[in-house]
Amino acid sequence: MHFTTDTSSGGIREQLFVLGETPGALWTPDGSSDPLGRTGPARPRPLVLLGHGGGEHKKAPAVLDRARRLVAECGFAVVAPDVPGHGDRPVHEEYDRIATANRARIEAGAEPAPLLAQFHAQFHALVARRTVPEWRAVLDAVQRLGHVGAGPVGYWGVSLGCGLGVPFVAAEPRVRAAVLGLGGALASAGEAARITVPVRFLLQWDDERVPRATGLALFEAFGSAEKTLHANPGRHGDLPALEADSALRFFARHLGRP
Amino acid sequence: MHFTTDTSSGGIREQLFVLGETPGALWTPDGSSDPLGRTGPARPRPLVLLGHGGGEHKKAPAVLDRARRLVAECGFAVVAPDVPGHGDRPVHEEYDRIATANRARIEAGAEPAPLLAQFHAQFHALVARRTVPEWRAVLDAVQRLGHVGAGPVGYWGVSLGCGLGVPFVAAEPRVRAAVLGLGGALASAGEAARITVPVRFLLQWDDERVPRATGLALFEAFGSAEKTLHANPGRHGDLPALEADSALRFFARHLGRP
Repeated sequence: MHFTTDTSSGGIREQLFVLGETPGALWTPDGSSDPLGRTGPARPRPLVLLGHGGGEHKKAPAVLDRARRLVAECGFAVVAPDVPGHGDRPVHEEYDRIATANRARIEAGAEPAPLLAQFHAQFHALVARRTVPEWRAVLDAVQRLGHVGAGPVGYWGVSLGCGLGVPFVAAEPRVRAAVLGLGGALASAGEAARITVPVRFLLQWDDERVPRATGLALFEAFGSAEKTLHANPGRHGDLPALEADSALRFFARHLGRP
Repeated sequence: MHFTTDTSSGGIREQLFVLGETPGALWTPDGSSDPLGRTGPARPRPLVLLGHGGGEHKKAPAVLDRARRLVAECGFAVVAPDVPGHGDRPVHEEYDRIATANRARIEAGAEPAPLLAQFHAQFHALVARRTVPEWRAVLDAVQRLGHVGAGPVGYWGVSLGCGLGVPFVAAEPRVRAAVLGLGGALASAGEAARITVPVRFLLQWDDERVPRATGLALFEAFGSAEKTLHANPGRHGDLPALEADSALRFFARHLGRP
């Protein structure tokens, strides 16, 4: 794990890093403002991995906002890796070709939503074959850092972050709670069934990209005894701000804010 | 409005009353422990009307628990009327005949859930023709009390409390926010469409009494721009305690806790 920058602002330390081929950002409370009052290396800190959306990256506004609140309000560490073909990563020819075709289909509006959703799901499954091992390696490296440690882990990702998050959470036993959403079950029902940790699932009632039935089917598929669906009116991009407040409480409850 | 008892315990004042043919309970913070610091008659207090479930009454444990928390944690006034045929009200022959037949059908398990749901919905619509005017009269009387006043009003009711709550909230412009759930759309979609205030709708994913599709259809039917569906695994009676915490925050937000 190679750190490229290390800055601090408003009580939040931000370290950009590269691990193998994965660039990422790590946020932690800086020493003087740790809401948990922890400064030494011996106290493991809850860690949330954020999976960004399609076309976004590790420092997209929505990602930064979630990261800052988890650090400032919960005292957690937060890490966000760039997905292949996003952020500081080189264009990945195969993914780029598929994503470009996908955008063209969406813009043309010619295909019915279920076909688009199937296309999406297959693409997510393809990318997840790389991101699952990358993100597990990121957890390994970050949890070895003295100012993080091996505390409980959470995952938060919607849209592309859900498509990649379902196989990640299914594969990674360190994850104890997950906020997922804006995704459907077409490719990932089997992996969803293997998830048993508490899940908060966010669904947009009028999602123009994810057919409602496939979102409800993904919620149904989770193997977790504790899972809650939060559905709100609006399109794919209209997730209400209240759900971010609620997700913070969800993580605080499950990852152990004192 | 005739008060029959007036007691105080743990900072909460409880007054039992009769208004016309409607017995009810009113809870308010007692003077010494008002979380809003209000003692005079000039400051209207938010008021939540609780509609109890079938077979319950104004002081059923679930009703008492919601009432006490709304008073103690939010500083609100709370009123719960007995539904005809429940609590301190005389047996209503027609309702009783229908309810008895309904229980027999449920226990026999012979009829498919959609038929039972339709039966339920028709019964609720019948009872609501009495409870809507009764509850509006209760609001009138309670809001004239010096220690309550004409503040914003909320409604909280699930199951029977949803079946009766939908027509009440649709008819009563003083209601500014409602928590509803464990009900379906069969009889009340038209009334739900006239509701435009923020709605929190609770659905049990494995509800054996309310077919999932009719619950989703009722959520769909609400005319409110701000409405959120919270769905959890479990049967009709298994609503998780977390939803009560969340409903308190919902009312605090919409009825104006300082």
